[in-house]
Amino acid sequence: MTTPNISRRGDLIQESPIRKLAPMALDAVKRGISIHHLNIGQPDIPTPIEFWDAVKCNMNTVLAYGPSIGIPALRESICVYYSRSGISIEPDHVMITTGGSEAVIFSMMATCDPGDEIICFEPFYANYNGFATLSDVKLVPITSSAENGFHLPPSEEITSRITDRTKAILICNPNNPTGTILTDAEIAELADIVSRFNIYLLADEVYRDFAFDGREHSSILEYPEIAERAVVMDSISKRFSSCGARLGNIVTRNKSLMTAFVKFGQARLCPPTLSQYGATEMYRSMTDEYFSSIVSKYQNRRDILMEELHGIDGIFFLKPEGAFYATIKIPVENTDHFAAWMLTDFSVDGWTTMVAPAEGFYATPGLGLDEIRIAYVLEENRMRSALEILKAGLQEYRASR
Amino acid sequence: MTTPNISRRGDLIQESPIRKLAPMALDAVKRGISIHHLNIGQPDIPTPIEFWDAVKCNMNTVLAYGPSIGIPALRESICVYYSRSGISIEPDHVMITTGGSEAVIFSMMATCDPGDEIICFEPFYANYNGFATLSDVKLVPITSSAENGFHLPPSEEITSRITDRTKAILICNPNNPTGTILTDAEIAELADIVSRFNIYLLADEVYRDFAFDGREHSSILEYPEIAERAVVMDSISKRFSSCGARLGNIVTRNKSLMTAFVKFGQARLCPPTLSQYGATEMYRSMTDEYFSSIVSKYQNRRDILMEELHGIDGIFFLKPEGAFYATIKIPVENTDHFAAWMLTDFSVDGWTTMVAPAEGFYATPGLGLDEIRIAYVLEENRMRSALEILKAGLQEYRASR
Repeated sequence: MTTPNISRRGDLIQESPIRKLAPMALDAVKRGISIHHLNIGQPDIPTPIEFWDAVKCNMNTVLAYGPSIGIPALRESICVYYSRSGISIEPDHVMITTGGSEAVIFSMMATCDPGDEIICFEPFYANYNGFATLSDVKLVPITSSAENGFHLPPSEEITSRITDRTKAILICNPNNPTGTILTDAEIAELADIVSRFNIYLLADEVYRDFAFDGREHSSILEYPEIAERAVVMDSISKRFSSCGARLGNIVTRNKSLMTAFVKFGQARLCPPTLSQYGATEMYRSMTDEYFSSIVSKYQNRRDILMEELHGIDGIFFLKPEGAFYATIKIPVENTDHFAAWMLTDFSVDGWTTMVAPAEGFYATPGLGLDEIRIAYVLEENRMRSALEILKAGLQEYRASR
Repeated sequence: MTTPNISRRGDLIQESPIRKLAPMALDAVKRGISIHHLNIGQPDIPTPIEFWDAVKCNMNTVLAYGPSIGIPALRESICVYYSRSGISIEPDHVMITTGGSEAVIFSMMATCDPGDEIICFEPFYANYNGFATLSDVKLVPITSSAENGFHLPPSEEITSRITDRTKAILICNPNNPTGTILTDAEIAELADIVSRFNIYLLADEVYRDFAFDGREHSSILEYPEIAERAVVMDSISKRFSSCGARLGNIVTRNKSLMTAFVKFGQARLCPPTLSQYGATEMYRSMTDEYFSSIVSKYQNRRDILMEELHGIDGIFFLKPEGAFYATIKIPVENTDHFAAWMLTDFSVDGWTTMVAPAEGFYATPGLGLDEIRIAYVLEENRMRSALEILKAGLQEYRASR
């Protein structure tokens, strides 16, 4: 029987490097192996009780559609949250999305038509590749170097890549997968570039709370000269350990963009209703203590990661400045193969460690082949065990080559 | 300050005819007016207790990501649900989506590249227009006539619109907004066409349970000769009165398509976790009695609608065969204006009635201008009040022209 081809975008869309090894992990579990998950940014911290209390208060009724732009109470509480960082926005500048994922895809689609280009700095959050394929946007990658702490390259290197199809520059700050936080001067430089070339600046600030060693995160919303060009994509997934709620938001002061976002949102009707009630109460009840305890927990985990990595031969890594990821060069030819091997061929006392191969975090073919991303989202003892197993695995893998 | 243009798709995407009057409704409420909502398919029936019980059992922990394809228990329970209609599918044929909306957009994107065409029969669910804009797919509408009960036009009229860019035929069965249910013979005819022309058949079967007067709904999954061509889009929103859960699913036996769907799904990580637990328990606990009580309730509401409409001069309507919508021709020039006027200028004892103008349910410009869609989702007394007010409004509106 002849069957029609699937679409090119269906064929070409990248498998998530974070999720593509999932079937092998499932097989390992079936064989009785337990897995330390350093491959995915799934925090182990309980979702705050305020979320569950709000869910309880909204049960046993009709679970109804909400407004396409999101419920007013949540949009208001998000404004209060931003005001803690000195950022003044109105509820009309906020649209609730189904996860940060939808915030990114809507931002790409509202700024770009098929074939248009967005400049981004690799390594970047791998799923930008997928969103770009879905929206038929061409990501133009500029490689940021580990030697430079994964900070921005010189201005000319950025501007030289701008064409008449370039509609935006996309940053992830703090960065997933490197943990780098852009400085004020870097944001100011980007603000200057997007103004001069009349393009948008899109910032994924999902990890904005996670800044270590006393650093302050600068938001693109703090630069009034790009008020009309700035689009922030955000999420409660990591902030409140609520990945399964699928709730994020867009912030922009640009009315035309917001009108487009709302029309996109009308097509998919609304974001999840219960999650919005839960998120509203979490935003309302959050305290400085909540955030500082979370940040110090992750900073401590980062320090443990650094300690453990120092004991491994032949690897190269930097000290992450924020978020909860590190991109690490390891002495193997292909980390795709190594990460799979850890699941299929290696274990210590019934345990193995899962990491994300970094190739998918690049848009330039061939880059990242000898790198992995580690998400340090487990508590101290599990982190140490996971890294010991990774170290032992790496030794055995290299010996077997 | 110069600001960059937004994208054409951001500019051109249609406002939802179901939701675009929402700001006027909000204003009316602020003025103290209460609204009967016949504009949106938001059932008033409580979400089953099994949903809430499952949510309770999964509270007070980490609200974590689930698998991109959906949790296994839900995919299994959906297979059991389909088996009640004599349809045999495996969990591997089922992917959970974020609402039926995502099921439609993924189906468009996996079968079509930008510029490709999908044939559909207008009037159709308005948001197909939005999804087509987002995925840069061209909808090729064939107008179905009220005289023909909104059933399919002759075969040649369909095949004459197939070009080398046509990748699929899209149906909504039972139909939103007309309530028409395609016969076995019609589905067989479509199966024959998609086989002859080597294209896909996409069926939105969200209302598959809602068939009146003893009718049986035929699914495209029941035609083995198109096993590789058939994609069903489904949702729990109406089946279990759970619109705010944002949970739907795709069913296809085509492995290449499923691989593409899963990769699309990996990009957005996963559908809402709590909703999946709730849906699993609803599917597991559903009984024939549940479905028959729901169907008889909506059939009764349809009968009330028919009764009330018969008392209104100059309108034209058909008796819907299923779903819970009716498309009605009314004696005004522009139902957009009339529907807005009902919110801004008319009320009876502090109440008004909101309907959806039908123009947005067509892809051909100029069609549907004198039609409205009514969702009969309110209980008997409210239905009658709502329709009395609509009737009075129509009289006054016409008198004032």
